[in-house]
Amino acid sequence: MQLEIISIGDELLIGQTTNTNAAWMGEQALRSGLQCSRVHTIGDDPAVLRAVLDEVLGRVDLVWITGGLGPTQDDRTKDALVGYFGCAVALHAPTLAGIEAYFAHRKLPMLEVNRQQALLPTGPRTAILSNPRGTAAGMWFETDRGQVVVAMPGVPSEMQGLLLEEVLPRVRTRWPMPHRPQRTVRVHGVGEAYISNRLGEWETALAARGVAIAFLPHLGSVRVRFSTVAADATVGEALLDQVCSEFVGQIGPAAYSTSDEPLAQVVGAQLLARSERLAVVESCTGGALAAALTAVPGASRYFLGGVVAYDAGIKSLLADVDPGLLEAHGAVSEPVALAMAQGGRRRLGADWVVATTGAAGPDAAPGPQGGPPVPVGTVVIAVAGPGTHAARAFTLGAPARHTRAQRIERWVGDALDRLRQEISAR
Amino acid sequence: MQLEIISIGDELLIGQTTNTNAAWMGEQALRSGLQCSRVHTIGDDPAVLRAVLDEVLGRVDLVWITGGLGPTQDDRTKDALVGYFGCAVALHAPTLAGIEAYFAHRKLPMLEVNRQQALLPTGPRTAILSNPRGTAAGMWFETDRGQVVVAMPGVPSEMQGLLLEEVLPRVRTRWPMPHRPQRTVRVHGVGEAYISNRLGEWETALAARGVAIAFLPHLGSVRVRFSTVAADATVGEALLDQVCSEFVGQIGPAAYSTSDEPLAQVVGAQLLARSERLAVVESCTGGALAAALTAVPGASRYFLGGVVAYDAGIKSLLADVDPGLLEAHGAVSEPVALAMAQGGRRRLGADWVVATTGAAGPDAAPGPQGGPPVPVGTVVIAVAGPGTHAARAFTLGAPARHTRAQRIERWVGDALDRLRQEISAR
Repeated sequence: MQLEIISIGDELLIGQTTNTNAAWMGEQALRSGLQCSRVHTIGDDPAVLRAVLDEVLGRVDLVWITGGLGPTQDDRTKDALVGYFGCAVALHAPTLAGIEAYFAHRKLPMLEVNRQQALLPTGPRTAILSNPRGTAAGMWFETDRGQVVVAMPGVPSEMQGLLLEEVLPRVRTRWPMPHRPQRTVRVHGVGEAYISNRLGEWETALAARGVAIAFLPHLGSVRVRFSTVAADATVGEALLDQVCSEFVGQIGPAAYSTSDEPLAQVVGAQLLARSERLAVVESCTGGALAAALTAVPGASRYFLGGVVAYDAGIKSLLADVDPGLLEAHGAVSEPVALAMAQGGRRRLGADWVVATTGAAGPDAAPGPQGGPPVPVGTVVIAVAGPGTHAARAFTLGAPARHTRAQRIERWVGDALDRLRQEISAR
Repeated sequence: MQLEIISIGDELLIGQTTNTNAAWMGEQALRSGLQCSRVHTIGDDPAVLRAVLDEVLGRVDLVWITGGLGPTQDDRTKDALVGYFGCAVALHAPTLAGIEAYFAHRKLPMLEVNRQQALLPTGPRTAILSNPRGTAAGMWFETDRGQVVVAMPGVPSEMQGLLLEEVLPRVRTRWPMPHRPQRTVRVHGVGEAYISNRLGEWETALAARGVAIAFLPHLGSVRVRFSTVAADATVGEALLDQVCSEFVGQIGPAAYSTSDEPLAQVVGAQLLARSERLAVVESCTGGALAAALTAVPGASRYFLGGVVAYDAGIKSLLADVDPGLLEAHGAVSEPVALAMAQGGRRRLGADWVVATTGAAGPDAAPGPQGGPPVPVGTVVIAVAGPGTHAARAFTLGAPARHTRAQRIERWVGDALDRLRQEISAR
């Protein structure tokens, strides 16, 4: 079942806004068994919209439109569609009540242009889709050939709510489709080529089992997506459970989540389960490691915080790193990383401490006394843990093509992954 | 002069990749005086590409295509275009030399499929555009009616280099256009409506002076873009200098950059000019404030690092905050923020310290002893400075609709902006 998307908005054409809605809708379509075959991005121009609709309805039976439903003069999608389908409009009481409640809740005055958003198409081949997140309702039109055109606002949260709660359920009723369960396994520290090579014939045999596999690599991590098509949802889910379990068995501990969770959340769950607490002593990651950990809601239950030791003096001052060690080995070295982790652990009262030191660029970092400089991209990560856990350090690199920002993001992943594996191994 | 863009790639249709290329190209078009009137996103399918080209060349004289130029079997754009324009192909020696050098530099084996990337269209109405960043050259085709179709790879850095260095200069030669200079002024802490109201008739009069104004708001900051059209570049630049200067005069210190620089860079330049050094003591921003500062290359010249005091104990341990103060006033309070900034300044040996404490959610933060909790979104920022500078604290809020991540990003901007204004005022 094919679908085309029409994204409306001058701001999309001049690059003021990136069209993230189309990507999100394309993924939802895929998950629902629909295939998005084209996306049309056009300006707020009723004549262009009409021409695109004529063209698209000659190819497919389902069209999703976003944008141009706001209250201002440059929002012209509603009038254009009402004209195109030749509908009457009428005041839609539930939508008006919703708009009034929206303004009352925010203690804002409601204007006549907002009231006009409740003037909506009416008739046997239309439906109004409730949008509790905003003031622009969704609209559903059917052609006399049974084709469906849905219009949604362009605000991402409003479009997403409408698509998941109103549009997809109606589409499934209108065109019953098989289930398309999917699972995403996350892997860190090994590449797509390594994974594929390791899987060998098992990967080839997936197709015969009705399972598709896709690799989505990003800065040291790979998301591996498995999907299948099943008349019975339970059967499909059980097949994917089995496939994910086989996959993890072959890839081993590099696979860190079978439910598409980020590393910081997986580490958080490990710590919560053990009632242990974490702190960081970060140099090259400059705060980004702590920021990734605190991005998880509820992180305060296991994350204490820590030290951003960007300057060498702070490493000594707050993490007890011996200045002689810095001089003898250079800041980007295993002895210094170990001292940061162990010193931080003593000072901060945490069970686990992860420390980072590296050469983020643009310049190489000074090396050990009398030695060569440390090339850009090198990072040393150290993990110190509770009880008899021996602190360990790991020296890793990042590809030369990376930017400074990419290097930092990759090192944050590397640090969280080393921590995860040290916690698991203990 | 109108232009349409064709983005090719199955990954764009299933939402695996967001179409950031189209937004970037749309902005470049606008800056060059071209108008992108439509974007077509399609799969790797030569028949669809031919049909779209037929349609687009019936409307406009310039077409930019990205994607489908890689070495693998699903990259079919080159063959489709060679067929569409009926060109011959020949081995393009400079491109082959570039590909060989690319693999030699990376010490990777070069495959036959890579060599075939140097088989390129040839003939009077074609040109090959050099891509030093990758192995897929750009291609320029002209129709017998003088229309131009340009194909570029989909890798963003390669497309951007080709567009700026090869495509736009040739387009300007082919269709001479007036200059379109532009300036972006950044403003923090006041909204779009406030700015517009403040500008009053001055804003209205801009059109008569030939200057367009656009507002691009994002989490507490607004980028205000001025552009003009001028036959003489010097005249246009001078007009925009004058307009920016008038704008800053009316908006005052909330305007922090007339050259579109981020706040962290502006603060860095202030500190460098004064040879002063900065540290942070951050609670609610959880590392994101330090990460924004260290994202600027060369930050180590003025940024020492600091403390992520997520847990109350760390606030006392590393920033000397009196536990009694925390209990009496609650962690999200001006006395605690001031103590964090002043304690951090004493401990870390920095000239300036900025401290953050707030309720990031999902739950409200505990309030003072016996008092009500602090609502989600509240933040207290304190700035302590050198010499006779009196530490100051500021209590701010964030809109209720914000997510946790948006709140943190906004608070980072608020903290950097308060710091900037305190440094300026001293």
